[in-house]
Amino acid sequence: MTTEKNTPLSATDYLIASKQAEIQSLNYLLHMGQLVVMISDLIHALQKERGASNIYLGSKGSQFEQSLQQLIGQTNQHLQAFHQTLSTIHAEISSHAGNSRLLNRIAYVVHGLAGLDGVRHQIHALNIRPDLAIRVYSELISGLLTIVFETADAAVDPTIARVLVAMFNLMHGKELAGQERAVGAAGFAVGTFTAADIQRMQHLIDAQERCFELFTEFANPAALALWQQYASRPYLIDIERLRRIAFTGTPPHRAEQSDHWFDLLTQRIDDLKSVETALEVYLQQLCEQKVHDANASLNQQQDLIQTLGEDAAEGFVVFLTGHDSASLKPASLDQYHPEGLSPRLGRSVFELVQHQAQRLQHMHDELEAARTALEERKLQQKAKALLIKHRKLTEDEAHRLLRQMAMDQGKKLVDVSRAIIEMAEIWRVS
Amino acid sequence: MTTEKNTPLSATDYLIASKQAEIQSLNYLLHMGQLVVMISDLIHALQKERGASNIYLGSKGSQFEQSLQQLIGQTNQHLQAFHQTLSTIHAEISSHAGNSRLLNRIAYVVHGLAGLDGVRHQIHALNIRPDLAIRVYSELISGLLTIVFETADAAVDPTIARVLVAMFNLMHGKELAGQERAVGAAGFAVGTFTAADIQRMQHLIDAQERCFELFTEFANPAALALWQQYASRPYLIDIERLRRIAFTGTPPHRAEQSDHWFDLLTQRIDDLKSVETALEVYLQQLCEQKVHDANASLNQQQDLIQTLGEDAAEGFVVFLTGHDSASLKPASLDQYHPEGLSPRLGRSVFELVQHQAQRLQHMHDELEAARTALEERKLQQKAKALLIKHRKLTEDEAHRLLRQMAMDQGKKLVDVSRAIIEMAEIWRVS
Repeated sequence: MTTEKNTPLSATDYLIASKQAEIQSLNYLLHMGQLVVMISDLIHALQKERGASNIYLGSKGSQFEQSLQQLIGQTNQHLQAFHQTLSTIHAEISSHAGNSRLLNRIAYVVHGLAGLDGVRHQIHALNIRPDLAIRVYSELISGLLTIVFETADAAVDPTIARVLVAMFNLMHGKELAGQERAVGAAGFAVGTFTAADIQRMQHLIDAQERCFELFTEFANPAALALWQQYASRPYLIDIERLRRIAFTGTPPHRAEQSDHWFDLLTQRIDDLKSVETALEVYLQQLCEQKVHDANASLNQQQDLIQTLGEDAAEGFVVFLTGHDSASLKPASLDQYHPEGLSPRLGRSVFELVQHQAQRLQHMHDELEAARTALEERKLQQKAKALLIKHRKLTEDEAHRLLRQMAMDQGKKLVDVSRAIIEMAEIWRVS
Repeated sequence: MTTEKNTPLSATDYLIASKQAEIQSLNYLLHMGQLVVMISDLIHALQKERGASNIYLGSKGSQFEQSLQQLIGQTNQHLQAFHQTLSTIHAEISSHAGNSRLLNRIAYVVHGLAGLDGVRHQIHALNIRPDLAIRVYSELISGLLTIVFETADAAVDPTIARVLVAMFNLMHGKELAGQERAVGAAGFAVGTFTAADIQRMQHLIDAQERCFELFTEFANPAALALWQQYASRPYLIDIERLRRIAFTGTPPHRAEQSDHWFDLLTQRIDDLKSVETALEVYLQQLCEQKVHDANASLNQQQDLIQTLGEDAAEGFVVFLTGHDSASLKPASLDQYHPEGLSPRLGRSVFELVQHQAQRLQHMHDELEAARTALEERKLQQKAKALLIKHRKLTEDEAHRLLRQMAMDQGKKLVDVSRAIIEMAEIWRVS
């Protein structure tokens, strides 16, 4: 492919450039997939560190001092791997079109992570309120999840986009489980759940279920099989029992239930991490396979182009009508054959171009399903943000209001969200 | 901005990279805007050449031989300018993410244009059926329009996207006027309009109106003012009168009406081209202004970053809670100040990141309106394609069926289209 100025480029140059653009997108996804793996590990480490920090602060430094230091060491290893991957792919991310938003999200997370050591010092010195310490960790995890979301949203290959949507929802569901662990552990430790605690837990359970639904819709069979295997693990019975006790207050709470709850949810979170790993393995294989296939297809296309003659002159009319050009001439006027023969159908550049166009269109259509799942989330987030801002609700209250409206009106959450956004535009509050 | 391996990048690196990604997108749009200008001129030349070729073939070579050669010379000049612009921006188009489809469209057009000289020879030798010659020109124009459509669809800046949507619809409407000119000229020349001719003209008038509606919705004030000025030109009365005569057959057609009709529509098309030029001038100015502003904003951001201290440690907690960190500490525990002072709110890296995020979100939301107009067209095209394929309808018939359903059901064309596509999926015919 020549890129010199003033040299007219041929159709086959563009045919090949189109294929190369696909390969470039796949390579990009391969590298972003590696970043997603790093993020998955980093989030898991941060979740553990958050849990231990919570207990350390709650016990006024009497518990978990040792294991917290160990966990910090582990987080730092994943942090280093995350930064290293980011550095390696920085040039690629920065030059990839339409990445302003992703880069902005990364800026946020990187800056937050730079402050982590300071917060750890405050935790160690018992110099920070536990709820704020927790909030810093949760915000970092939320920022990391957003990077995965943006990656899924920008993926142009439908199969890879599906895996990334499954991945984001699994990771998000796992984080919600982590938050449920914290609320439950605190409630059982104190011996009572306030109405707000119960609402919060209900919201977290509800949101987890929605995440896992989307995960099962988009996951590959291997990850799904592992998921189903874990879905019948006996400890889930205990979790449901403790949830019931938390909500009803019957039988009365006992303080040791806090540790039991914490261990159960930790087991659940670790299981979810195993499913994540299965998804990650598949994602990497899939990306590598796709890059390999696209390269093979490019080589094949280049070989095929070599065998094609110049068919442009008559070829266009033949291509447009599907008829041999001879039959298209006015009767008795057949003396003019610029190339001497008409090209065989099925081997013309036009047909290669059309074949590629159909394949790209098909990919575009398939992508819709994965995009819709993300679009629904965006709409819900936007509706919630409007409610939080203009009706002064908390995140939980906004979510509950949405859910209540959906139930009352017999509509889907996403439709209620859309209606709220549209109404906000009419009220000029957006 | 460093891109070396193993050097952890800071949040400000990503903040700047995000801004640079925006500038890159704007530069890309600036160059694609230049291609759109070339396409506008090339289409106009092809429309003229098509009209003259039609008359030349219709008169069996007795009319327009000279002026056809002149028009071909003019087209070739625009063709060369188009190819030159393509070559100049080839590297940029090829490396821009997600451009497989655009490159495929370009491959199609470039290959078709390569065959143009062969078709011209066939026309000169009266060695091609007039309808096929016309079809070659129309297909080339349609392919060129698709490049403009894809450019509008991929634009990430909302203001530029709006102008491109206006531009595409104006160009498309102008091409439909060109097709109406051909159908009308042929009908008046023969002295009668068949039912199919009338249907075709009605469809073309209808489709023009939809295009011009969208143009007026998205155009800038200057182009709109010119448009409105031309909308009251007296020749439009004559066009409407001749349309009525064509549809009703009263008063009887006269052969000289063919030339009159052709001249009137040519005047209309030339006026539309003037509006196109006004849009083009605005598009170029807008793109240059946006690139300039973004660069200024980047410089400002870089200056601001210089003045900011390292605020990451305490800054995150402050940022998350909106409170000075001192007030967040457990009572009586205030001996720990890692940096000595807390950063002023409003001047932290977090706030810069958040400001950028809000701006990007706002742009994303604004983009929706322009995208919706394109999305509706995609849905209609897809619904029509399904009807053409599975109900064996022509393009006109498919369009009429859609319009009829919309009227009968009191729905918008786009909603009927969506319903047809959804039903097709249920019937498993997509």
